[in-house]
Amino acid sequence: MKGIGRKERAKLEGWKDGRMGAPHPSPPKSALLSVDEMALFVDYYQLTMGQADFDAQHNSVITANYYVRKIPQGQYLIAAGLEQVVHYILNLRFTDATLDWLAERGDLHADYLASLRDFHFDGSVFAVPEGTPVFPNEPIINVTGRSRDVQLFETYLLCVMNFQTLIATKASRIVHAARGKPVFDFGARRAHGRDAGILAARASFIGGASGTSLVLAGCLFDIPYVGTMAHKFVSERPNELAAFRDYAAAFPTNTTLLIDTYDTLEGARNACIVAKEMAARGTRLRAVRLDSGDLLTLSKQVRQILDTEGLDYVQIIASHELDEFQIDTLLSQGAPLDSFGVGTRLATGANLNSFTGEGGTSALGGVYKLVESDGKPVGKQSLDEPSKATIPGKKQIYRLTDTAGNYTKDQVALWDEDVSEGQPLLVPVIEAGELVSDFPTLQDIQARMTTALKRLPDSHKSLTEATPYAVEMHPSLLVRMDDR
Amino acid sequence: MKGIGRKERAKLEGWKDGRMGAPHPSPPKSALLSVDEMALFVDYYQLTMGQADFDAQHNSVITANYYVRKIPQGQYLIAAGLEQVVHYILNLRFTDATLDWLAERGDLHADYLASLRDFHFDGSVFAVPEGTPVFPNEPIINVTGRSRDVQLFETYLLCVMNFQTLIATKASRIVHAARGKPVFDFGARRAHGRDAGILAARASFIGGASGTSLVLAGCLFDIPYVGTMAHKFVSERPNELAAFRDYAAAFPTNTTLLIDTYDTLEGARNACIVAKEMAARGTRLRAVRLDSGDLLTLSKQVRQILDTEGLDYVQIIASHELDEFQIDTLLSQGAPLDSFGVGTRLATGANLNSFTGEGGTSALGGVYKLVESDGKPVGKQSLDEPSKATIPGKKQIYRLTDTAGNYTKDQVALWDEDVSEGQPLLVPVIEAGELVSDFPTLQDIQARMTTALKRLPDSHKSLTEATPYAVEMHPSLLVRMDDR
Repeated sequence: MKGIGRKERAKLEGWKDGRMGAPHPSPPKSALLSVDEMALFVDYYQLTMGQADFDAQHNSVITANYYVRKIPQGQYLIAAGLEQVVHYILNLRFTDATLDWLAERGDLHADYLASLRDFHFDGSVFAVPEGTPVFPNEPIINVTGRSRDVQLFETYLLCVMNFQTLIATKASRIVHAARGKPVFDFGARRAHGRDAGILAARASFIGGASGTSLVLAGCLFDIPYVGTMAHKFVSERPNELAAFRDYAAAFPTNTTLLIDTYDTLEGARNACIVAKEMAARGTRLRAVRLDSGDLLTLSKQVRQILDTEGLDYVQIIASHELDEFQIDTLLSQGAPLDSFGVGTRLATGANLNSFTGEGGTSALGGVYKLVESDGKPVGKQSLDEPSKATIPGKKQIYRLTDTAGNYTKDQVALWDEDVSEGQPLLVPVIEAGELVSDFPTLQDIQARMTTALKRLPDSHKSLTEATPYAVEMHPSLLVRMDDR
Repeated sequence: MKGIGRKERAKLEGWKDGRMGAPHPSPPKSALLSVDEMALFVDYYQLTMGQADFDAQHNSVITANYYVRKIPQGQYLIAAGLEQVVHYILNLRFTDATLDWLAERGDLHADYLASLRDFHFDGSVFAVPEGTPVFPNEPIINVTGRSRDVQLFETYLLCVMNFQTLIATKASRIVHAARGKPVFDFGARRAHGRDAGILAARASFIGGASGTSLVLAGCLFDIPYVGTMAHKFVSERPNELAAFRDYAAAFPTNTTLLIDTYDTLEGARNACIVAKEMAARGTRLRAVRLDSGDLLTLSKQVRQILDTEGLDYVQIIASHELDEFQIDTLLSQGAPLDSFGVGTRLATGANLNSFTGEGGTSALGGVYKLVESDGKPVGKQSLDEPSKATIPGKKQIYRLTDTAGNYTKDQVALWDEDVSEGQPLLVPVIEAGELVSDFPTLQDIQARMTTALKRLPDSHKSLTEATPYAVEMHPSLLVRMDDR
């Protein structure tokens, strides 16, 4: 198993950008899992195989590779989730409580469980930085270490990488459709539990969203959080005008009024009354929000009502079953909308064309597969289903650009192959069990994503019928494939 | 606002079953959210509206109702998630750290934040017990209390109820398709983060699954967890036979061998060799697992190979992009499969017909809406989108049965309506801020679900083209709707 040399390392993106600092091996609040939970957030076979490896004294050093075979929607992915993976890998410990509980169950043997007491990962992780566009079959994370250690990370790594990459990609599509108008994650209520809500907000921000409605995500990741008002606030009061006045009194400088509780156009007229009262007090109504009905027609009518009253500064926010297809169509047809709150279809990563109804499961099917064992490329052959075969060998991605810096193609090659062209994308994150890379802020990750996605030609970014980006397998990999 | 009388209460399902015990107000490990996280797992508008309510001294007592307008797949739902909701409601506190952080942000005022310091919920919760079949527009949870308290629970309640109800329902469909053969949740790696993995296992079990691969879910909820082996375990060894022998040596009594790493039929023959070696040592190979290819053809061929070798006791487990449609078809066509591991489409609740490709977002769009304020029914009119209107009034569900105990129809009526027929489904869970109902074990919830689903006629349970179950709105509700 060959590491990456110092000289080669200096080439690596992210390594030379001055962001390196002292490692911080303890998990920050964004790690989410407690130490007591970590060791049990595994599919049981990871422990049964660990037992069998221990019994057989199988101590191979292997590399496992996280990659995605097929992109469910569009032609690119935005890698996201590495920070949580790295915290898991660095902090995974088997506490006494965990080991006692496992021992009581009786299936795993005392000697194997005892061997886990001092577990800490002493291998290495190379990964594509979060916010980087990646493509099918490209290695996104390489984990190298003792076989039974490396396999312990499988479930959590897959769970957070698959989910956050799915959401960051979906967010980038929605932000693309919104043409520079801000997009906010409103999806916590339809997300699949706590982490889904929090991580959807995080990954949405990586993918270009401007913020979230979920305060906890704002707190954990220092991203903007926003709030408007609910229909409940209006329904509880004698009338809509009274509700608008109460809200404007509490938030004189950052007021958004929800105008569709009864009748949207009447709501717009009530908003005008309150906006003028606010103006008389020297403040400005920030926005009105539409949350139902025909958003195209209503937004035009509401814009006209606002403008007629001289309230051209009042913005219109839309929500209500939005996604990239809905937003693209609304804006193509001239809907005067200023920003978007996107809920269910963003926070669940709906792989659905909301116009045609063609859909897929809201999941990314990334896998974590053995590719090298004791320096030798290995893979799964899967004769009965060739699409599930793996390409043997630890690999690096090289991204090629034209003179303007735009991406032209990627080449995937064996790790120790001498490849003269292109930027290597996988950078060192953990070496000999030590963190060797700082975690960028989410703002930095978002900036990386924005810059990178600009360099990806438009033909690969269309919402429908995008063309695949060229990913070439280096000839050495193909030889190995034939050789297996 | 009228509570439910003692006499009426005695009628309530779940109340009279002897499961009542001392309330346990502190969160058990299944609560998942820490106290520091709880108060911030809100959409920001809950706090901004709280501020506006506080400023206006708006102190109405309201009822908010959790219900689902439309079932995305099939004609029934299995209610799930109440335990996590109740823990949230009972334990929500604003810690100093939370309040300090909010204060630093500057948008909420000191007097409002100070009012949150002693927050604890002193209202009531009535709910349909977990594991109960429910239908569109039926009240699943009623929360009654001070308006700005009740709204604090919205995001978490929706998040855990929508997700777990989605998954319990999906699981029940898959278990139905499996015709008594065990189904296991294998989905953590494609779940949307930690809670999604854990709660998918919990809700799957409620919906009838026999267990999960996720050890942490087994630990938290005392449900069976299972493990087989990964392709990695085979690929790493000199050959498949060596891998099978290592695994069988470590698990002589509960061995499942994965036989599709290279060539499934060759794998089956290798499994036979190891099974006979095990038999010679006095143990039995439990099962082989298929994870790719044409499961119908392969399972028949593998069964024949096993039977020819006299290994009729070795079971065949299938996994690989399964859902209720795939399992139903496999079994209809006579696939000799003994149990199923279902991953992505179970743990994400894929609202997808995997044969037709017709799909929807993997989410349940349940809502939490104001229905009563200071004793008066209220609702949202939503003239621009009538499907988003709410039916005003706090409501109870009455379930009618025939003499055999089978469900014939439900009637939804105002809470204080005198309804002579049917079993009321919403039972008291919290009164005056105190827990008044014990949490059943998951085993008990699963048993409730199984019994109840048997009573629902088959026509409402078909995988495709099921007929809607009759849910009648009591005439008093319709009058209120016209009156609004």
